[in-house]
Amino acid sequence: MSISLDRGHLKGFAEQSDIEAIADNIQKVHEDLEHRRGAGHEFTGWTDLPGRIPDAQLDELVALGEEVRGHSDCIVSIGIGGSYLGIRAAEEFVRGGKIPIFYAGLNISADYHYRLLEQLKDRNPTVVVISKSGTTTEPALAFRIIKDFLQTKYSGDELKKRIICVTDAKRGALRTIADDNGYRSYVIPDDIGGRFSILTPVGLVPLALAGIDIKSLVSGAREGQRLYSHFDLDKNIAYQYAATRYLLYRKGKVIEVAASFYDNVFYVLEWWKQLYGESEAKEGKGIFPSSLSLSTDLHSMGQLMQEGLRNMFETFIDIETPDHTLAVPDSEEDLDGFNIVAGKDLDYVNTQAHIATASAHFEGDVPNMTIKLCKGDAYHLGQLFYFFERAVAVSGYLLGVNPFNQPGVEAYKKKMFALLGKK
Amino acid sequence: MSISLDRGHLKGFAEQSDIEAIADNIQKVHEDLEHRRGAGHEFTGWTDLPGRIPDAQLDELVALGEEVRGHSDCIVSIGIGGSYLGIRAAEEFVRGGKIPIFYAGLNISADYHYRLLEQLKDRNPTVVVISKSGTTTEPALAFRIIKDFLQTKYSGDELKKRIICVTDAKRGALRTIADDNGYRSYVIPDDIGGRFSILTPVGLVPLALAGIDIKSLVSGAREGQRLYSHFDLDKNIAYQYAATRYLLYRKGKVIEVAASFYDNVFYVLEWWKQLYGESEAKEGKGIFPSSLSLSTDLHSMGQLMQEGLRNMFETFIDIETPDHTLAVPDSEEDLDGFNIVAGKDLDYVNTQAHIATASAHFEGDVPNMTIKLCKGDAYHLGQLFYFFERAVAVSGYLLGVNPFNQPGVEAYKKKMFALLGKK
Repeated sequence: MSISLDRGHLKGFAEQSDIEAIADNIQKVHEDLEHRRGAGHEFTGWTDLPGRIPDAQLDELVALGEEVRGHSDCIVSIGIGGSYLGIRAAEEFVRGGKIPIFYAGLNISADYHYRLLEQLKDRNPTVVVISKSGTTTEPALAFRIIKDFLQTKYSGDELKKRIICVTDAKRGALRTIADDNGYRSYVIPDDIGGRFSILTPVGLVPLALAGIDIKSLVSGAREGQRLYSHFDLDKNIAYQYAATRYLLYRKGKVIEVAASFYDNVFYVLEWWKQLYGESEAKEGKGIFPSSLSLSTDLHSMGQLMQEGLRNMFETFIDIETPDHTLAVPDSEEDLDGFNIVAGKDLDYVNTQAHIATASAHFEGDVPNMTIKLCKGDAYHLGQLFYFFERAVAVSGYLLGVNPFNQPGVEAYKKKMFALLGKK
Repeated sequence: MSISLDRGHLKGFAEQSDIEAIADNIQKVHEDLEHRRGAGHEFTGWTDLPGRIPDAQLDELVALGEEVRGHSDCIVSIGIGGSYLGIRAAEEFVRGGKIPIFYAGLNISADYHYRLLEQLKDRNPTVVVISKSGTTTEPALAFRIIKDFLQTKYSGDELKKRIICVTDAKRGALRTIADDNGYRSYVIPDDIGGRFSILTPVGLVPLALAGIDIKSLVSGAREGQRLYSHFDLDKNIAYQYAATRYLLYRKGKVIEVAASFYDNVFYVLEWWKQLYGESEAKEGKGIFPSSLSLSTDLHSMGQLMQEGLRNMFETFIDIETPDHTLAVPDSEEDLDGFNIVAGKDLDYVNTQAHIATASAHFEGDVPNMTIKLCKGDAYHLGQLFYFFERAVAVSGYLLGVNPFNQPGVEAYKKKMFALLGKK
């Protein structure tokens, strides 16, 4: 039960010897991270978070989920950025929990929220609203709208039990709302930024309510913490991944294309993009993270991968043992010529497509690597979450930026508030 | 009822005078396209396709849709690349037809297709299988699986009426299968490549079956053909868009980020990526097309847009009049401070977010433009499809490549067939 990294298509770009040549840099960065003395160290609470989550807290959340599912047939999760994509990544990766999650506050579209209310009309939801401050535009407006809607259906204690807040321990609008109304609330720690928050109550509360296996998720993350927190370049594949990216970037590979032949990885890559884009891209530096859905995009973007500008590298996410098998049916006429794989599992063909693609892209001068998960379950996702978090901290430090701030995110907000006349 | 292009944030990068300076190039390219004498001219049948579609053919497809929906509660559309993304773009943009479309053959995942069969078990589908040759791996294998499944539910004439083929007029495995079994079939023209095929039976058949308004779609495309087929740089916004991209690329803007604040545009951008990536990216050249979902990604990739490498530009897709309005509720306590917009439509805030973002990114040295659609309906989508098709032909020619071939797509297939032992 683990994750492995296949670095077989990096020859001439970022070989083992190239990593060893920067081992001192990596060690320094590792120690800055471990001893919490690097840039933004006040936001590195996620490094030992999995090991710090009390089992009792997980039990409590699992019990809360059972209680909520006793009176609710869906969850509405209100949040944006890291407070949306991690939850959705987990829900889609494990192919859903016991009840569905609807997402709100991820945009400001009237059509989107109008349709959401239509869908909720005949349902009995419990709402989780996630915001550190409670004043972030998108979730704040969505919470107003959803609360208004809930009040048309429920009142008093019934309303109260259907609203759960995930917010700051002491300060902010949402903390006040929760305390004033007696809503149940969970705390977003001060030392973990939004994009690293999936294993805090930000992710665990809505996932537990939906009946997704948060114990396995955290258990995988703990294994990730154990495996990826030490300085051993031969064994720590998160550091190998980080070092490889950094080396490729120095050689002008400014775009990382994450790609998977497994459709349930789609939102994991959306989560990965928000983590990597926000952590690394600053001070006029940083890799542009992009993603592909295979094999669909091989029949289009595949042209670009093979013959476009040679300014990119590729990272595949592979699931070695899918949940199901499906044999290719035999055909009497064999007009399409695929009787050669008749009786074989469809994923046998999928695996050959992956091997062929990785090799073809490498021959087309796109260096690539593959992160392999044994299974597509909550345990491996927890481990992968930690893998990517640890790796981006290291690659960000190697790049010379603070991976834990986001000064650029304020620019549009300031202008928008000016337009709206908001202080 | 139209589309406009806002070029307000291009100062210093690609101004009107810069476009005028390359007017001769554009005129040459325009004439090569119009007179079908440029590279790949044998695949430019799409240029006057909308005007050539007989109304009687549209009527026939609409009638076929009504007939099919009489015995089917869903459509299964089997296709990949351009034979998948255009259909899905249209279905999601117009927020669904009268019955849902399930998609198959877009990947080779056993889990994906296993789950699809589970969903179809208690349904009565009609299947559209789309493949020029009938031997493309993904749709061919999916068709074997889906046909096998259908045969467990139906036989004889019942089976026959539930399978419709969209394929070559004369040649290929799927043509033979259709003819031998007496399946209804529609023709993919020889002079239109997969990525330009949305307005051929590839797109029109499954959309008509699902009850999506193909007459409005084609009507919008006809308006697109009328507006974007002439050489008048002041009025032809498709040529302005093409020229702007080319000028930005020459200034080192090698990534185009297409972004929208409207969630129903998501798959339109996936379609756009396949069209642009495959048409332009060859011979070591071409823009890398990527997309963002706003405002979610402003809380993550927004950091990169504002302060990452300055190697990109941005194209927003805006819908000026959404289908619904939704007033921001008032709050007695106003803890979040948003009573300033109480009573206003949520999309008023959305529009301010767009204005603020475009301005902030421009000040951060990301030139950007906005393609504005009056409405988010089939008519405007048809026009937009043509807009993007026409523009990529021009920008590809300006770049000096053949926008209509895809030599690089074969590389992975050759290797995969070798691994599978297929001739």
